[in-house]
Formats: sequence, C-alpha cells, structure tokens
Amino acid sequence: MPNQQHPIEQTFIALSDPTRRAVVQALSEGSATVSQLAKPFDMALPSFTQHLGVLENAGLIVSRREGRSRVCSLNPAALKDAEDWMAAHRKQWESRLDRFEAHLQNAKKEKSND
Amino acid sequence: MPNQQHPIEQTFIALSDPTRRAVVQALSEGSATVSQLAKPFDMALPSFTQHLGVLENAGLIVSRREGRSRVCSLNPAALKDAEDWMAAHRKQWESRLDRFEAHLQNAKKEKSND
Repeated sequence: MPNQQHPIEQTFIALSDPTRRAVVQALSEGSATVSQLAKPFDMALPSFTQHLGVLENAGLIVSRREGRSRVCSLNPAALKDAEDWMAAHRKQWESRLDRFEAHLQNAKKEKSND
Repeated sequence: MPNQQHPIEQTFIALSDPTRRAVVQALSEGSATVSQLAKPFDMALPSFTQHLGVLENAGLIVSRREGRSRVCSLNPAALKDAEDWMAAHRKQWESRLDRFEAHLQNAKKEKSND
C-alpha cells in the first residue's frame, strides 16, 4: 500500500501530471462519475482510469459504486498533508531570513551608536 | 524554460523524489554549498547535481557561485505557488461540502416544521 508508506511522495507524483491535476480541479467543483470526468479528455478510457487509479492510490480521490457508475470525490486531507509539508519548510526558511534581517538591523544600529 | 511555462508541474515533479525533498528540508534550515548538501547522500556527485538541477529548473532553489563553491538557497515562492494551487482546490471542495451540509440542515428543519 504505497499511499500509506509515502503519502506525500504519492501526492506529488499524482499531481505532476496535467490530466490528473485537471481531474482534481474538476472534482473540486463536486463529485462526478468516471464517464463525466473522462469526457473532456481525448484519451482511451483504460488510460484515463489508470490516471484515476494513481490519484486514488495517493489518497487524493475516493470512489464508490452507484448502480452502474463509479462516482469519484476529492479527499481534501491528502492535499492538506502536502500543503502542510511545503508550508513547514517555507516558513522555517522565512523565519530564518527574518532573524537574519533583524540581526543585520541590530548590527547597523550598534555601528551607528559607535 | 520549463519552469516558466509549467511552474507547478515542475514543482510537483521535483518534490516527487525523496532525495530532492531531503534537499528542500536541509535548505529550509539555511543556505548550503553543494558539497555540504551532498554529504548525507550515498550518491555519485553527478547524480546529486542532477537532482539539484531539477530543483533549480523548478525554481525551488537558487544557487550562486562563491569562490570555488556553489551555494544553494531555498526559493520559498515556488513552494507557495504549489501550496496555493492545492489550497484553492481543497477550499473550493470544502466550501461546497459546507453549503451541502447547510442545505441538509435546512431541509431537516423544514421537515420538522411540517
């Protein structure tokens, strides 16, 4: 179960493809059946369902059977995990920069007080 | 210039590799030379610098020459762009869910008032 071992890795792999990002974008507007999702793409259905499989493995989408259709929905938790990973590293770098700037300002003040 | 045409695609491709994510993590703690960054990895330097190239193409890191070393730094803007892309779709889905729940609550109230 790769999505349980490396959830963020699977999320980034899933989102590195334009078809899969378009599916995430479409599902952000509401749940949809596989055939509704496939409609805008000039792609054979097996290739398209393979993309859905990558998204589902990454935990980015969930699907359920409704009669003869499969209905897909977005799973916001997987997006949130990847967002949090990026935000944590970005903020650590930004706070380091802020401390460095404060240090420079202090050094400047001390120099002008000499 | 792939990083200007598909910045988010390049960001997700770059972050889908564990070595490259480890470099982002290391650089979030401060700038470092290529040899400092390479040290923890059991990898030939050409392979490692190839990973740095992918990160730099994606705009996730910037580098400058300092004497005989190349110093790398994190570029938080590229992380922020990908975070924003994910947050926009997640929030659109969540607000849709909220509206749906409010609609269910209203329907429940109306039914109990019958």
